[in-house]
Amino acid sequence: MKITVLGTGMVGQTISARLKGLGFDVSMETRNPEETKNRIEANPMTGVAFSDWYKEHSDIALVAYGQSVEDAELVINATSGGASLEVLSKIGSDKLTDKVLLDIANPLDFSQGMPPFLSVCNTNSLAEQIQAKFPQTKVVKSLNTMNALIMVHPEIIPGDHNVFVSGNDELAKKKVIKLLNSFGWKTENIIDLGDISSARGTEMLLPVWMRLWGVFGHADFNFHIQKAN
Amino acid sequence: MKITVLGTGMVGQTISARLKGLGFDVSMETRNPEETKNRIEANPMTGVAFSDWYKEHSDIALVAYGQSVEDAELVINATSGGASLEVLSKIGSDKLTDKVLLDIANPLDFSQGMPPFLSVCNTNSLAEQIQAKFPQTKVVKSLNTMNALIMVHPEIIPGDHNVFVSGNDELAKKKVIKLLNSFGWKTENIIDLGDISSARGTEMLLPVWMRLWGVFGHADFNFHIQKAN
Repeated sequence: MKITVLGTGMVGQTISARLKGLGFDVSMETRNPEETKNRIEANPMTGVAFSDWYKEHSDIALVAYGQSVEDAELVINATSGGASLEVLSKIGSDKLTDKVLLDIANPLDFSQGMPPFLSVCNTNSLAEQIQAKFPQTKVVKSLNTMNALIMVHPEIIPGDHNVFVSGNDELAKKKVIKLLNSFGWKTENIIDLGDISSARGTEMLLPVWMRLWGVFGHADFNFHIQKAN
Repeated sequence: MKITVLGTGMVGQTISARLKGLGFDVSMETRNPEETKNRIEANPMTGVAFSDWYKEHSDIALVAYGQSVEDAELVINATSGGASLEVLSKIGSDKLTDKVLLDIANPLDFSQGMPPFLSVCNTNSLAEQIQAKFPQTKVVKSLNTMNALIMVHPEIIPGDHNVFVSGNDELAKKKVIKLLNSFGWKTENIIDLGDISSARGTEMLLPVWMRLWGVFGHADFNFHIQKAN
């Protein structure tokens, strides 16, 4: 299966490397591939420059936004939440028509420092904004409620813990759930919250997530919904 | 210890009955005690009229707003989020000075139907609004992230699950944590998120909580933060 990952930051790198390791045909898309390949300053989240990371992952295609989307069976939005709508507009609705778009971004606004605010919430969400702007695209929100490595290696956290799925298209959600299974998510730990407006709820988990990160001093945790038997 | 519970809805009833059962000296406060005592229409959340509930709990004092606050060592805000600031203003800052106020309300706005919105979030919270309006009161936010019965009987949910605490005053938080212990909360499952602004995070858990309630068809669940060992 051909998969396009939008974004080359920590999340894009982590997802792309895992997908490649699982045998998928992965392309990463970025604004300017040559510039990205030559980037020597360390990524603030990973401490590693993209150029160094890419030396170890040169089997992943790195192309300009829109170059690999037409052939992709699944597109993953791993851009920063503040850039997502602009990047998707650059790619254009024609190329995104009928595509399943897995949106894992969060609309975090760091402009006022830490902790960040959400640039949209409560009565709307980034996922809904994307779905509204690209009505022919099948947007599925998932994986946005945890650190990148846990998204693709849920076994890092012992025991049961959850990943949420929101979207209007049932077949698109099934495709995403299958991908989650391939990352190691047990089906009983995947919670389908309903239509894309339920992404408001999962994007609004970020403020407590940021506080927990501060309290614990690490990001190796995840939400688990504990139920009565 | 004398405790005043503000509000006579499902949450106020559940908290008051549990506190009384634990041996605390509990007063419930409401706008018009006589009117409340004679209320014969069923509470939409419990299905039981207040007059019937009170027949079984007539050992709990029911007084007008402000009548028991001065003698109380702890005041619990169990009013609806939309009414909280008005009720507290009615009681007045003089009576609330130096009091520990445990705020368990959520600023849910049901005026547009289900699911409700938050009337304040992201850059502010109900708890912060209360703290700002009553700077001499020691506001502690807790228990607002779960159904009323689970607040006071955490053993309903098997295994470990969490309750969050936010507040600016360390001694006030200690007093609340001790109360949580008496309800049955293990200290290791109580997460201190920091100052009162961290209540934004827990109030913003409500949108996903409402969706989960819809998905499960019951409210017997709670958040557990699962960590790597």
